Amino acid sequence: MEISNSIRSRVLIDALPYIQKYNDKIVVVKYGGNAMTNEELKEAVMSDIVLLSLVGIRVVLVHGGGPEINDMLGRLGIESKFIGGLRYTDKETVDVVKMVLAGKVNKELVAHLAEHGGNAVGLCGIDGKMITADRAEGENGEDLGYVGNITKVNIKPITDSLNNGFIPVIATVACGEDGTTYNINADTAASRIAAELGAENLILMTDIAGLMRNKDDPSTLIPFVNVSEVPFMKRQGIISGGMIPKIDCCVEAVRRGVKKTSIIDGRIPHSILIEILSNEGIGTQFK
Amino acid sequence: MEISNSIRSRVLIDALPYIQKYNDKIVVVKYGGNAMTNEELKEAVMSDIVLLSLVGIRVVLVHGGGPEINDMLGRLGIESKFIGGLRYTDKETVDVVKMVLAGKVNKELVAHLAEHGGNAVGLCGIDGKMITADRAEGENGEDLGYVGNITKVNIKPITDSLNNGFIPVIATVACGEDGTTYNINADTAASRIAAELGAENLILMTDIAGLMRNKDDPSTLIPFVNVSEVPFMKRQGIISGGMIPKIDCCVEAVRRGVKKTSIIDGRIPHSILIEILSNEGIGTQFK
Amino acid sequence: MEISNSIRSRVLIDALPYIQKYNDKIVVVKYGGNAMTNEELKEAVMSDIVLLSLVGIRVVLVHGGGPEINDMLGRLGIESKFIGGLRYTDKETVDVVKMVLAGKVNKELVAHLAEHGGNAVGLCGIDGKMITADRAEGENGEDLGYVGNITKVNIKPITDSLNNGFIPVIATVACGEDGTTYNINADTAASRIAAELGAENLILMTDIAGLMRNKDDPSTLIPFVNVSEVPFMKRQGIISGGMIPKIDCCVEAVRRGVKKTSIIDGRIPHSILIEILSNEGIGTQFK
Amino acid sequence: MEISNSIRSRVLIDALPYIQKYNDKIVVVKYGGNAMTNEELKEAVMSDIVLLSLVGIRVVLVHGGGPEINDMLGRLGIESKFIGGLRYTDKETVDVVKMVLAGKVNKELVAHLAEHGGNAVGLCGIDGKMITADRAEGENGEDLGYVGNITKVNIKPITDSLNNGFIPVIATVACGEDGTTYNINADTAASRIAAELGAENLILMTDIAGLMRNKDDPSTLIPFVNVSEVPFMKRQGIISGGMIPKIDCCVEAVRRGVKKTSIIDGRIPHSILIEILSNEGIGTQFK
Amino acid sequence: MEISNSIRSRVLIDALPYIQKYNDKIVVVKYGGNAMTNEELKEAVMSDIVLLSLVGIRVVLVHGGGPEINDMLGRLGIESKFIGGLRYTDKETVDVVKMVLAGKVNKELVAHLAEHGGNAVGLCGIDGKMITADRAEGENGEDLGYVGNITKVNIKPITDSLNNGFIPVIATVACGEDGTTYNINADTAASRIAAELGAENLILMTDIAGLMRNKDDPSTLIPFVNVSEVPFMKRQGIISGGMIPKIDCCVEAVRRGVKKTSIIDGRIPHSILIEILSNEGIGTQFK
Amino acid sequence: MEISNSIRSRVLIDALPYIQKYNDKIVVVKYGGNAMTNEELKEAVMSDIVLLSLVGIRVVLVHGGGPEINDMLGRLGIESKFIGGLRYTDKETVDVVKMVLAGKVNKELVAHLAEHGGNAVGLCGIDGKMITADRAEGENGEDLGYVGNITKVNIKPITDSLNNGFIPVIATVACGEDGTTYNINADTAASRIAAELGAENLILMTDIAGLMRNKDDPSTLIPFVNVSEVPFMKRQGIISGGMIPKIDCCVEAVRRGVKKTSIIDGRIPHSILIEILSNEGIGTQFK
Repeated sequence: MEISNSIRSRVLIDALPYIQKYNDKIVVVKYGGNAMTNEELKEAVMSDIVLLSLVGIRVVLVHGGGPEINDMLGRLGIESKFIGGLRYTDKETVDVVKMVLAGKVNKELVAHLAEHGGNAVGLCGIDGKMITADRAEGENGEDLGYVGNITKVNIKPITDSLNNGFIPVIATVACGEDGTTYNINADTAASRIAAELGAENLILMTDIAGLMRNKDDPSTLIPFVNVSEVPFMKRQGIISGGMIPKIDCCVEAVRRGVKKTSIIDGRIPHSILIEILSNEGIGTQFK
Repeated sequence: MEISNSIRSRVLIDALPYIQKYNDKIVVVKYGGNAMTNEELKEAVMSDIVLLSLVGIRVVLVHGGGPEINDMLGRLGIESKFIGGLRYTDKETVDVVKMVLAGKVNKELVAHLAEHGGNAVGLCGIDGKMITADRAEGENGEDLGYVGNITKVNIKPITDSLNNGFIPVIATVACGEDGTTYNINADTAASRIAAELGAENLILMTDIAGLMRNKDDPSTLIPFVNVSEVPFMKRQGIISGGMIPKIDCCVEAVRRGVKKTSIIDGRIPHSILIEILSNEGIGTQFK
Repeated sequence: MEISNSIRSRVLIDALPYIQKYNDKIVVVKYGGNAMTNEELKEAVMSDIVLLSLVGIRVVLVHGGGPEINDMLGRLGIESKFIGGLRYTDKETVDVVKMVLAGKVNKELVAHLAEHGGNAVGLCGIDGKMITADRAEGENGEDLGYVGNITKVNIKPITDSLNNGFIPVIATVACGEDGTTYNINADTAASRIAAELGAENLILMTDIAGLMRNKDDPSTLIPFVNVSEVPFMKRQGIISGGMIPKIDCCVEAVRRGVKKTSIIDGRIPHSILIEILSNEGIGTQFK
Repeated sequence: MEISNSIRSRVLIDALPYIQKYNDKIVVVKYGGNAMTNEELKEAVMSDIVLLSLVGIRVVLVHGGGPEINDMLGRLGIESKFIGGLRYTDKETVDVVKMVLAGKVNKELVAHLAEHGGNAVGLCGIDGKMITADRAEGENGEDLGYVGNITKVNIKPITDSLNNGFIPVIATVACGEDGTTYNINADTAASRIAAELGAENLILMTDIAGLMRNKDDPSTLIPFVNVSEVPFMKRQGIISGGMIPKIDCCVEAVRRGVKKTSIIDGRIPHSILIEILSNEGIGTQFK
Repeated sequence: MEISNSIRSRVLIDALPYIQKYNDKIVVVKYGGNAMTNEELKEAVMSDIVLLSLVGIRVVLVHGGGPEINDMLGRLGIESKFIGGLRYTDKETVDVVKMVLAGKVNKELVAHLAEHGGNAVGLCGIDGKMITADRAEGENGEDLGYVGNITKVNIKPITDSLNNGFIPVIATVACGEDGTTYNINADTAASRIAAELGAENLILMTDIAGLMRNKDDPSTLIPFVNVSEVPFMKRQGIISGGMIPKIDCCVEAVRRGVKKTSIIDGRIPHSILIEILSNEGIGTQFK
Repeated sequence: MEISNSIRSRVLIDALPYIQKYNDKIVVVKYGGNAMTNEELKEAVMSDIVLLSLVGIRVVLVHGGGPEINDMLGRLGIESKFIGGLRYTDKETVDVVKMVLAGKVNKELVAHLAEHGGNAVGLCGIDGKMITADRAEGENGEDLGYVGNITKVNIKPITDSLNNGFIPVIATVACGEDGTTYNINADTAASRIAAELGAENLILMTDIAGLMRNKDDPSTLIPFVNVSEVPFMKRQGIISGGMIPKIDCCVEAVRRGVKKTSIIDGRIPHSILIEILSNEGIGTQFK
């Protein structure tokens, strides 16, 4: 379809107030899910990130590993132990996690951004002691192995990269005080990094349309949530299951000073762009 | 008309390579003609300038006075003398020119840009001795009064403004060595300023579609001209009349190092945006 | 008269402590009255400003329009309406004010300073949104048209100019939130600008010797006034008539942190120089 | 053994002229071989790097992958094809190389340096487009797959890291123009990086004592070689076999402006420290 | 004695944590006593200072005059008057003090540091009004002439020197408000300078092993003293005689924020190096 | 005598072009002769230096020792040896020279400048290795002891002081490569320092009116000399005796790029001020 010049200019001019609003502000994007496995969606995300970065937004890309970790664990014949129903991360597993996240996924994202004209560097929580963690425990105190709780975030490597003109791409493994590596949850890491950076916005890309009153009916999407309503929504069951940890990350980020966090539908191409540069509601915003 | 999110994102992504290309580059826009007198067109230009400036382009706006000067001369009952067929600019006239250009048109443009969220300062060639001129003569040596030839451009006030985060808006009057004021041609001033700034692009807004083989037939528009072809095109009569000085400004700017100059159709809304941020040909480019 | 070398060196050395005192400090000069209309006095003021600026004082020149505005209104046949005894400033009038102040008087001052070797830029309250105003009312709530009360002063364009090595010359028109222009009192503007800049000194040039116990007897000049005495002096009638707003500006500036404000006699050549660089009392100081 | 204070101070003072000489200079260390697989030697290298970096030397650590790559290829059951006697690197293999080098070895080195108090960041040739390569060919034009020749080195990510106070640790994979990854030789990469950085010194850690006239007799070690002698030494067979590419890297670095390159014996603990901070000859120096 | 490479590297690596600890911190060394008169000790101090400065410690050297002042007073036949048992410093004497301290001892130290590769500048309390003093009195109010109490320390000349890459060498004479010179105690000056600089460490070089329970028995050396214990130790007589003012300087410096002060034995070669770069106790530390 | 305000302002305004001309330029003043021994003249010089420095001139004060050196040598009973008619400077003598110059005269000048509100630091050629010298010989190769020829000037300590806002006051002793001190001629040192600094002006203060055709007749003063005329004037005997080395310094400075050098009459109060800030001829200018 041919787009007319008048449409082009209208779209660009419509973006003006949003570009103004986010100018020189930090936006942390947690990248994962379908948007990471579907090639077309991935290209859209990459170009979105480059565009936002060019119009003066300081974008930080935080990513998990998607299915590539399990794939590699499978190829290496590493099986997961379960302790009290929870997956145990042994030394061998965390090494694979680190290798795949920081050595494969991370560097491929950097290369993809470069293909779209973006200037990126790939870092992980070990670089410049960016993320320090200690050993997490299961709900009943189970030893989960090398699963970590973030204890400290050192934003210097991130802000250095931003100030040097790079888009920082961050793989979410952490270092322990003793030099060990911990696997950490990417949503949580993104939330803590956004908070420490004083980000304007934290965007979590997911594979759902957002928070819905009835999770099977997209027409019940809740576009705005005040974080004070969350406990009530949990009791009501509106927030339940896998949504709980994601929304806890949103609440935590807002509590620690992030202006706005959004759960957006990563299955829609350019959902980041629409979220940031238009007044269209993509998913659910928490404030 | 409702514009879909997919159109929105496509337009924005289409703009990406152009934003990259012009990132941190200087673009000088000579503003005049219909785009200055028509309110709707003026608003479009203002929002274009602010948008370009926000996406990292260092825009300099150079303007003439349009009909406001003649209007004020008329209201004050000042009549033009003609010497050898050329208009003579006496002291009283040049004072009106300065007053209208630097005190009215210039400050109104600054205020308009501010309304669109732009951060601008209005300057004229007298500020910081930006433009120095001496007395121009007619072709046969006629005294034309306070009409000036630019002898020196001091870009410091312009680059200071850019570095301080302002859009410089420049009224084209010049100072003589002796403190007198000279009226100078706005196209010429824009061309010289672009050259001294090492601009990436000089855009002259006009009231025609561009350079046409047959000036009455827009379908004969010539989209690209190599400056070496210009003498031949003059001899052929393709470039003639009022187009000659405009195109000479383009040639001169290219010769002095400006990468590209364009004559664009100011009657089309957002023609600047289309010229800079798309691959659409608006008017004629000189290289 | 020939001045001997010994007199020369004595004068220069006498100036030393004052140059030390004002070194790198900001001095705001409100320029107006005879010193603006008399050519010889004007030249003296210009050279004073340049000299002070060269010896390390950060001078800001704020000016009104003197008789040039009325002159232009007269030539254009614009008559003033009076509402409740107060002059009403309509749109046409405020446009003339802006044009004459920012386009004629302002730029001529910049050119004059340049002739004396000064490096100046001319700005008005619209540039960089320096002065924002809202609609003033008469004492009984009369609509006075485009007469403004200052609501905000943004000193960035002024300090940028100072830091870039320029003498800022400021025409006192303001911008409204909606892009309209307001006429504002130059004394008030100078007072507010001095306060926001944390100036060391605000100098108001007037056509009187200073504040006098008997306004017809210069020998009753009051050289120093503590601002706390002003209400009493008003009740006594020592401060009355046209002196009231001027002295209110002085009091307001001192209250907002300006170290010293002076009302000096602009009819004496080089009165600024004498005020700043000697221990001679020119006029009345408020502290 | 107890070391007396007088020995301590003598050693420290002996190091003084070397610290002075290398102050603020760049030293590139190519790390590999036994020094990488033996834990004790590894700890010694880590503490050496941290110490050198603390005494004001700008150290850059370039590393290969050692046996870990082959180990992982083995575990994943990936077998190497050989074409014309040369190992062919297919897509699957280069992905493993990247993953192991940039995700495992690299981040472990960063963590080790941190344990010794060093502040490091791990980068690879893909980050910030640091190393660009194109497809290398065998001597007879054989296609070797994703084996790369370095075509461009962008030192910005390295010097940014140094200027931000980090020790850059560099995994030697490169990016192709099309976003593909290439495996590149670590000695060659270190040599090119040293040259582009204008390094004072390039140190290649090896598993031999240095260049020897008789490679089985350490007493025939040649401590100094002028690069102009190298062709002759090749013809004589003194430089032969696996030493040829290593010494070619040394020669190339010196030719491109590196002041000195050394092949040192990585099997001796703290050989880097002795090489840099003493007048003891460890291995062979090329100038 | 030949020192083996393994000893060399062990010593250097042992110094690593201390170099890390003091990196970019300020250490003020009060230099005096035997370490100043014995040539070999002096050379050792000079090389220590240069080494510490090279490994990133910001060293400030404060010195007294040792026997050279008395020697010069003797040669000039100037005899000291005593008033109430206290030495009176007349104008002639303080001039000799200044001359010998700032013109001879100070400049010789600068030259010695230069010989060891150090980049030093010599300053005294008069330069840049670094140390201001007023007249000290004896305990019973006796006039002691030009003996001064420090009233103000202006660290700008010191930090300027450090920031410009120089080791500041400071002769302890002070300026009075009236331009007179005062002789001040070098320990006191070092203590005040260390406090004003927020130094990490103040080291007073003395001719004793440190604070001893029995001052004739070095085996009773007290390695650590908490400054709160000092009053008790004075009452006990452990701190007595000439130690009192020295230790008061230590206490005062700690009270004003210096992290640690040490009284070290200047008779041991390289005692500064051992104090700073090892865990060996040289003398007594106050915290 | 009372000076009227009109005289005051005229003098100040007369100084304007000279202040403009020298703004931010370096002026080196060689201070010596009567201006150094006469208290009133000394105060005048001090206030001149402070004033020039305040009005934006970067003043460097270079001084000799005047009679104070001989006085101290006399008091210490040190007699000069003469070898081949030339004074021999032994080790003892050069130590006294250094001590008096750098420790007494230099610091007194710093204190005097401070009393006049100047911010000065005292340096000598040893500080920061500012002046390096080797052994000078007599015309017939006689050993003259510690008399030095300048071999290198390192302006960093001087420009650091200027950039830090201090007036550098320089005592002219130099350091040898081996750490010895050399006595150097103050005029020569001033000339070399001015040249290395790229000074605008070098002023040598003397006890004569300037260069005169008849040295006993002040009316024959030669106000301007082109350095190319100097050889001829020497042959004519106009330049002879003690004037030769002084004028050679002027010529040398001009040859090495100093814009102007002046020999001025230090016996006239404020001769520096008159030389710099007026069009009055004080003494002789070389260009």
